[in-house]
Amino acid sequence: MKQIDVCLTPELLYQHKIDNAIVVVVDIFRATSCMVTGFAYGVQSIIPVASIDECVKLRDQGYYAAAERNGMTPDGFDLDNSPFSYMNEKFVGSTIAVTTTNGTLAITKSRAAVKVMIGSFLNLEALAAYLRTQQYDVLVLCAGWKGKPNLEDTLFAGALVNRLQNDFMISEDAAMMAQRLYVGAQNDLLGFVANSSHVRRLHRLGIHKDISYCLQHDLYDVLPVLRGNQLVRM
Amino acid sequence: MKQIDVCLTPELLYQHKIDNAIVVVVDIFRATSCMVTGFAYGVQSIIPVASIDECVKLRDQGYYAAAERNGMTPDGFDLDNSPFSYMNEKFVGSTIAVTTTNGTLAITKSRAAVKVMIGSFLNLEALAAYLRTQQYDVLVLCAGWKGKPNLEDTLFAGALVNRLQNDFMISEDAAMMAQRLYVGAQNDLLGFVANSSHVRRLHRLGIHKDISYCLQHDLYDVLPVLRGNQLVRM
Repeated sequence: MKQIDVCLTPELLYQHKIDNAIVVVVDIFRATSCMVTGFAYGVQSIIPVASIDECVKLRDQGYYAAAERNGMTPDGFDLDNSPFSYMNEKFVGSTIAVTTTNGTLAITKSRAAVKVMIGSFLNLEALAAYLRTQQYDVLVLCAGWKGKPNLEDTLFAGALVNRLQNDFMISEDAAMMAQRLYVGAQNDLLGFVANSSHVRRLHRLGIHKDISYCLQHDLYDVLPVLRGNQLVRM
Repeated sequence: MKQIDVCLTPELLYQHKIDNAIVVVVDIFRATSCMVTGFAYGVQSIIPVASIDECVKLRDQGYYAAAERNGMTPDGFDLDNSPFSYMNEKFVGSTIAVTTTNGTLAITKSRAAVKVMIGSFLNLEALAAYLRTQQYDVLVLCAGWKGKPNLEDTLFAGALVNRLQNDFMISEDAAMMAQRLYVGAQNDLLGFVANSSHVRRLHRLGIHKDISYCLQHDLYDVLPVLRGNQLVRM
């Protein structure tokens, strides 16, 4: 039977065999929620990059560019790290270069996988439905925060495990813990997440609206996948 | 205010500052539960070692020796890895050399801390009461399983966080997640843990009795602490 497992931070990815697995990268606040939103609103492709410098280079080549470091947007970029900044006519059909603190690293580290896909609560059911049809194991890779596990990514991992529990074997404790955590919290995700270290950081920057948005389930039928160095819609 | 945090596996210990903290090492199934039981039954000191070879050397020097690798006991040792094997008159006042798959590594990695203490459900309240009187931050270090987070150690971490929530600040997501998991599972710990990867391994070796035993709360008023290279009762 196919297996689903969860890796709580990219620091622990080396413990997982991913060469026969689809890796679902998640960075709920807010990189992967932004990406899914972008594709839902017509963006054609997204180039994840590791550094601000690379992002600046791509911007100078004519791409739109989005950046975030420590929860804030550096000067001179076209988009900030709010999913609402992706809801803009001018990005329809365009390519956006994106760098984020944790999400890009998780994507880069996953390249050995059969497929690298992008997960968020916004496209949870689309993703679950697709993965059910595939023959591969699934590893949910939480981007975390500076190498540490975080609440919101773990909750997403648990949500996906929960949706796939009849189709996949849950063999490792991290997946069990994530599922249990999600099942216990799902009726008040916002209240639960409100205490997380990341949301406390975000609150300081005044963006409650993004948080509520990123916790909405099943808004978009979007399946972002890594092709070469770009994310595209499947 | 003092902080309490949780490290889900020794692989992530480098992310934590421990030089002003008391580290509580936990390996519920079964190293730290064995150690606490040993002290409760009169063992004078325990020498944790990393390898079977070191353990054999200490045995040859006249110490009692306990060993475990991958959930089993190698031939020729005085104790196996069941806490019940520590309940023996002959060990009263003695020193036991112990090697375990994950616990010893966690202890060794924690030496930079103000104090290294040994935690288990069996001495949970004794530990909580002591830590409340101390000025230091607390880090619960889960031994995990071969570098991965595991269910039972995370649940213990959550139990200790829960007992200390009025006395310490819970600032990081891992501590919040562990607490939430414990609070949700505390009324049926055995049922919850029964599905963990470790218990499934242990069940194969036929030791349900150890599992029930190790999940009992507050049996012993024992505070094992590392002094030099030995664990002693405080």
